[in-house]
Amino acid sequence: MVATVTPLHRETPASLDPIMALVSADMDRVNEVILARMQSDVPLIPELAGHLIAGGGKRMRPMLTLACARLLDYGGTRQHKLAASVEFIHTATLLHDDVVDGSGLRRGKRTANIIWGNPASVLVGDFLFSRAFELMVEDGSLRVLRILSHASAVIAEGEVNQLTAQRRIETGEERYLDIIGSKTAALFAAACRIAAVVAEREDAVEQALDDYGRNLGIAFQLVDDAIDYVSDGETMGKDMGDDFRDGKVTLPVILANARGSDEDRRFWKDAIEGRRVSDDDLAYANRLLRETGAIDDTLARARQYGQKAIDALAGIGGGKARAALVEAVEFAVARAY
Amino acid sequence: MVATVTPLHRETPASLDPIMALVSADMDRVNEVILARMQSDVPLIPELAGHLIAGGGKRMRPMLTLACARLLDYGGTRQHKLAASVEFIHTATLLHDDVVDGSGLRRGKRTANIIWGNPASVLVGDFLFSRAFELMVEDGSLRVLRILSHASAVIAEGEVNQLTAQRRIETGEERYLDIIGSKTAALFAAACRIAAVVAEREDAVEQALDDYGRNLGIAFQLVDDAIDYVSDGETMGKDMGDDFRDGKVTLPVILANARGSDEDRRFWKDAIEGRRVSDDDLAYANRLLRETGAIDDTLARARQYGQKAIDALAGIGGGKARAALVEAVEFAVARAY
Repeated sequence: MVATVTPLHRETPASLDPIMALVSADMDRVNEVILARMQSDVPLIPELAGHLIAGGGKRMRPMLTLACARLLDYGGTRQHKLAASVEFIHTATLLHDDVVDGSGLRRGKRTANIIWGNPASVLVGDFLFSRAFELMVEDGSLRVLRILSHASAVIAEGEVNQLTAQRRIETGEERYLDIIGSKTAALFAAACRIAAVVAEREDAVEQALDDYGRNLGIAFQLVDDAIDYVSDGETMGKDMGDDFRDGKVTLPVILANARGSDEDRRFWKDAIEGRRVSDDDLAYANRLLRETGAIDDTLARARQYGQKAIDALAGIGGGKARAALVEAVEFAVARAY
Repeated sequence: MVATVTPLHRETPASLDPIMALVSADMDRVNEVILARMQSDVPLIPELAGHLIAGGGKRMRPMLTLACARLLDYGGTRQHKLAASVEFIHTATLLHDDVVDGSGLRRGKRTANIIWGNPASVLVGDFLFSRAFELMVEDGSLRVLRILSHASAVIAEGEVNQLTAQRRIETGEERYLDIIGSKTAALFAAACRIAAVVAEREDAVEQALDDYGRNLGIAFQLVDDAIDYVSDGETMGKDMGDDFRDGKVTLPVILANARGSDEDRRFWKDAIEGRRVSDDDLAYANRLLRETGAIDDTLARARQYGQKAIDALAGIGGGKARAALVEAVEFAVARAY
């Protein structure tokens, strides 16, 4: 087996187009499953779920399940229900996240909790989560059920961990990596891994796809955390500085705080504890983040995880599917520029 | 097969003691599973979950799983993990319910959302829900997974249905029965049904235990809804009149409204829509509920469902286990007196 490693530097801008083209027909099937299975006799359920599900998400996680199934030349249809299940789990966590964070804007639209209230968002999230498990049960693989039920528990653990780290400037890089490994990367990893189960491939392939998804997920979250400081609401679809105002200790802040003067560290402590959250404070935070190289280094870390994701695919499949999965990583790490 | 039907009228007060004695050793195993599986490296999770799980609940649902397994003379140990799974699902829904209702008191203790906040309650609920599925996956029965994932989706649907019926006095008895059939009875039914799966009994037995649990669940909820008007916080462990103040349209209100004068109906509309919620209003509501026989008839309905539950056991098992399951029903319907 020869490892073909594609470098992260490219001539033309990376895009999601190849992976979207690769799975386009499959994604139509997934969207049919999603639409059919978010229905309920209780009208508020499809109404609220549809707002988020039809709301312009990239369907990143189900796309990964589908692309990995292609990578392994899987010729069946089981991936459609399972990719829908992955998207339902993701949507459920988004609904609950927005309640937890009191968010008002996601993907450029008002969040469900703002429109329908927190109670409806909590309960419809629970419904989608249950539906995800019903879909898995219909598929009938205990191995898939094990992977996704474990991922779901890990995601919830990561979210609680993040909640208890919030407003605590002393949160270190290791704990931060633990948190994003759980709350984001676990579902990316599981979404990829289940494709190997469906294609009935050996453990080493399962593990490789898990590694691909996990490292991509970490890279993805690192870039998201950087974007929260460098983007504006229009390009990003959420409010810039949300993490700052919520007192979330992300890697850019951890690096800037560690590298800052005593005065800088007093600023970060005050900001993260919620005492300096004006627009001026945010502008000042941005200056510190740039001066200390914290944003650049966060993005450099993201590229390293991206490279690990690409390396994990060495020797598995090939052709268009692998090229598309590689370019998806390159896109993920290049988004901030 | 001879149906042995025990009447609901008895010489001595009904008690949960027989069912608790029946499953006492099994419940020790279940509690060990619960304690072991609510652990996490994130300390807030066992802390918050433990508050509710150790907080004096009767463990009604896992008790039913265990008692039904005894009824069928099942001699294995699979029921322990599965009963813990049922309790985790129930605990997750309680955590989310208290967020949805903004409750402050449950089982006589401050609720988790009051102590740790809504975000932590939502996320720890998600964790317990995921853990429930991990336990089922470890057991390995797709049939059990199908029953409990479906029950979970139905519970969430029932909760959303209840939310959209809230503050709407025009909610009818049928819709109300739909709601409690989903939000309460579905898990009672599933908790009983899975015992037949574990004991590898035929479909008719599964269905009979499902019927037992479902009717018991409806009876249980009807009595709860009556108790909310007739009890005080001390005997009940939650605030009296919570449903009234939350604008929940329960059967007592539906009956009193339907039987009331035009003036009474104006009062109920005002009250349910949140314009008459003082202590005097609650006292007035209680008078109307008694005068119209709404409370008595709600409890009479509960006894009818209780009788259906008892009838469902006809011809299945016998001895101490059946006597204990019958007396549990009698206890459930007699609680309000």
